[in-house]
Amino acid sequence: MRFDLPSDGIPTAWFNALPRLPEPLQPPLHPATREPVGPDDLAPLFPMALIEQEVSTAPWVDVPGEVLDILRLWRPTPLVRAERLERELGTPARIYFKDESVSPAGSHKPNTAVAQAFYNKAEGTARLTTETGAGQWGASLAFAAAQYGLECKVYMVRTSYESKPYRRVLMETWGAECVPSPVDDPDSPGSLGLAISDAVADAAGRDDTHYSLGSVLNHVLLHQTVIGLEAREQLALAGEERPDVVIGSCGGGSNLGGIALPFLEDEGVRLLAVEPTSCATLTTGRFDYDYGDTAGLTPLLPMYTLGHDFMPPSIHAGGLRYHGDSPIVSALVRSGRMEAVAAPQTKVFEAAVLFARTQGKVPAPETAHAIRAAVDEALAAKEAGEERVILFNYSGHGFLDLAAYDAYNRGELVDE
Amino acid sequence: MRFDLPSDGIPTAWFNALPRLPEPLQPPLHPATREPVGPDDLAPLFPMALIEQEVSTAPWVDVPGEVLDILRLWRPTPLVRAERLERELGTPARIYFKDESVSPAGSHKPNTAVAQAFYNKAEGTARLTTETGAGQWGASLAFAAAQYGLECKVYMVRTSYESKPYRRVLMETWGAECVPSPVDDPDSPGSLGLAISDAVADAAGRDDTHYSLGSVLNHVLLHQTVIGLEAREQLALAGEERPDVVIGSCGGGSNLGGIALPFLEDEGVRLLAVEPTSCATLTTGRFDYDYGDTAGLTPLLPMYTLGHDFMPPSIHAGGLRYHGDSPIVSALVRSGRMEAVAAPQTKVFEAAVLFARTQGKVPAPETAHAIRAAVDEALAAKEAGEERVILFNYSGHGFLDLAAYDAYNRGELVDE
Repeated sequence: MRFDLPSDGIPTAWFNALPRLPEPLQPPLHPATREPVGPDDLAPLFPMALIEQEVSTAPWVDVPGEVLDILRLWRPTPLVRAERLERELGTPARIYFKDESVSPAGSHKPNTAVAQAFYNKAEGTARLTTETGAGQWGASLAFAAAQYGLECKVYMVRTSYESKPYRRVLMETWGAECVPSPVDDPDSPGSLGLAISDAVADAAGRDDTHYSLGSVLNHVLLHQTVIGLEAREQLALAGEERPDVVIGSCGGGSNLGGIALPFLEDEGVRLLAVEPTSCATLTTGRFDYDYGDTAGLTPLLPMYTLGHDFMPPSIHAGGLRYHGDSPIVSALVRSGRMEAVAAPQTKVFEAAVLFARTQGKVPAPETAHAIRAAVDEALAAKEAGEERVILFNYSGHGFLDLAAYDAYNRGELVDE
Repeated sequence: MRFDLPSDGIPTAWFNALPRLPEPLQPPLHPATREPVGPDDLAPLFPMALIEQEVSTAPWVDVPGEVLDILRLWRPTPLVRAERLERELGTPARIYFKDESVSPAGSHKPNTAVAQAFYNKAEGTARLTTETGAGQWGASLAFAAAQYGLECKVYMVRTSYESKPYRRVLMETWGAECVPSPVDDPDSPGSLGLAISDAVADAAGRDDTHYSLGSVLNHVLLHQTVIGLEAREQLALAGEERPDVVIGSCGGGSNLGGIALPFLEDEGVRLLAVEPTSCATLTTGRFDYDYGDTAGLTPLLPMYTLGHDFMPPSIHAGGLRYHGDSPIVSALVRSGRMEAVAAPQTKVFEAAVLFARTQGKVPAPETAHAIRAAVDEALAAKEAGEERVILFNYSGHGFLDLAAYDAYNRGELVDE
């Protein structure tokens, strides 16, 4: 059963979590001086509108009409009640998922890519650079750049560039250039940290070019709140007063923030982050200032971190392999407003296959972390004999991740 | 701009073209006797409900509630006005597409897979077999079989099995078994004709097993009419009185029939089939009785054909590489009610990339044939200075076809 908003039902303002946090965020620090960074420090990389959003305390931020024009290509996205999954589990819980996999790139990432491309275009930027790991973010920015006629260059971690060509092909189909990183050492397998350095150096060195980041930062989570805002309306259409728990997988925190933040002020609504046990930032990391990249070139952010030199094992949910976390998500976990759990990838794929066989759709491995937690919550409701309402974000599809399913189906997937 | 039906807006009856054809179809003939086949000839392979639908002259056929329960997982599908494509073309035409890519398998194929699995389950079948080329149909049947708890075995053309593993992985994820065909000759690259023989022989040899076909047959096109029936309602929501032309790509004819047949009786609505120039059945084939398979084991069908021994070149739109065509589509083309055009694959990919850069979505190569024709129709409307309404079927997404885009982007794609 699906609960659709009308095509003009996209939220016209983003929900800003910053003024609603238990306490104000600590500021980012300059990597050299360790002093709080100001707008001027960021201006070579970002347009002023995004720098302002990064620190804005306005409770709501208007979505520009030119952004809505593009979001309308796939939004509002469906909210679906997973009745066949419920039946299979024999749970009295009602499980809803918000389907962000219907975007052109196949995930939630374009929600912020479009906004970032728009603000850059509006301030005269001609060209964007970014880094990408498996390619989900690079593909989303390539799509968004094409919509506003911006050039786009994506630095892709060399091992992924060579072993996972399909998202590179997507980027090129949308007109972007995609090159392996590091650019100056063809023998290096590369890393996300090195790719960030390449993309930042490119943007800093050219007046017509800015840099774009796909998660972690406050303005990225702001843009993603369309997910949770739509889901609120759709749950009301489904006759639900409120969810008991809102679940998102968590790498940098953007899909989780997108679905969970709009429920921040709702009493009795649990917010739940799900991360891989092999990169368990929120559940085993320390809260501290740390760099966003491996090389230590970015500002220091106040967040849960495994250390910027942490090398996570090569799990299939590449989008969750990040040493740090969004400062907003970190603050919510630290204050107790948000919970966090970790799941091993074999249990995650078990839930993914259960979902595929009951609901049909094959989820991305990242998304399957949220499904794992939703299934566990539904089983807990069964145990307790309680009708709970579970909402999770179906952040992306698995059509480009079938090699991982092949490994699981053959019994070759292990927990690291 | 999207025009959504409510979630209970799935058609509850299929549109039967058979009683509405310009003249009755000639019957299929037994491959050995060349006498018309009767229900008893088909009973070892198909459940009686489907055999009846194959010859039914009822104008409408009810969709069972248990089928609607599964279709509801992704239907009604969106109708989208491609405004950004229109603007890019500078055309006064209004272009609408029906988005069948949102199904679990990523194409229109599950519409009939679900119905076929249901009728088999209802008549006590425990197990289904089928053949598949690139895997689109096999994946769809695997999904449908999982919904009704049926076993499913798919015989996949060996070259595809070895070179295109991803749809095999989809089938296995949904619980089906997928084996390379021919089963008795591991050195043969296989062909669709040989795979049909394997699947039919398996079904004929076991009492608990039936065979399932994904296109060509009348009951398959019947099940696909949900596409056009929904599109009619959605065009009305968009304020359109009627389309001027309805377009579908054509291999066996099922996605084309699905969108076009419900407009069969509308005067002034052109129906247009698009096929690849390298396998141009409707535009260069002869109308004759021919076998459905290469080996000559299936009944003879009255259709346009390139000869059952025709070996089409290995184009990227694998779903359109078929020597014959649906008898219903063939009859409509022969009578002049339906038009047919052929397009070379380089021009097809040119249209696909134009669509991807304006509307965001990356289409399957098969679907891109329909886009090519829609673009040509829109340019003709521009030339004529006329506001025409163009409707085409977006039959599937291209996430599992990115190798073809890579070849096109690199300038390595050629017309054969």
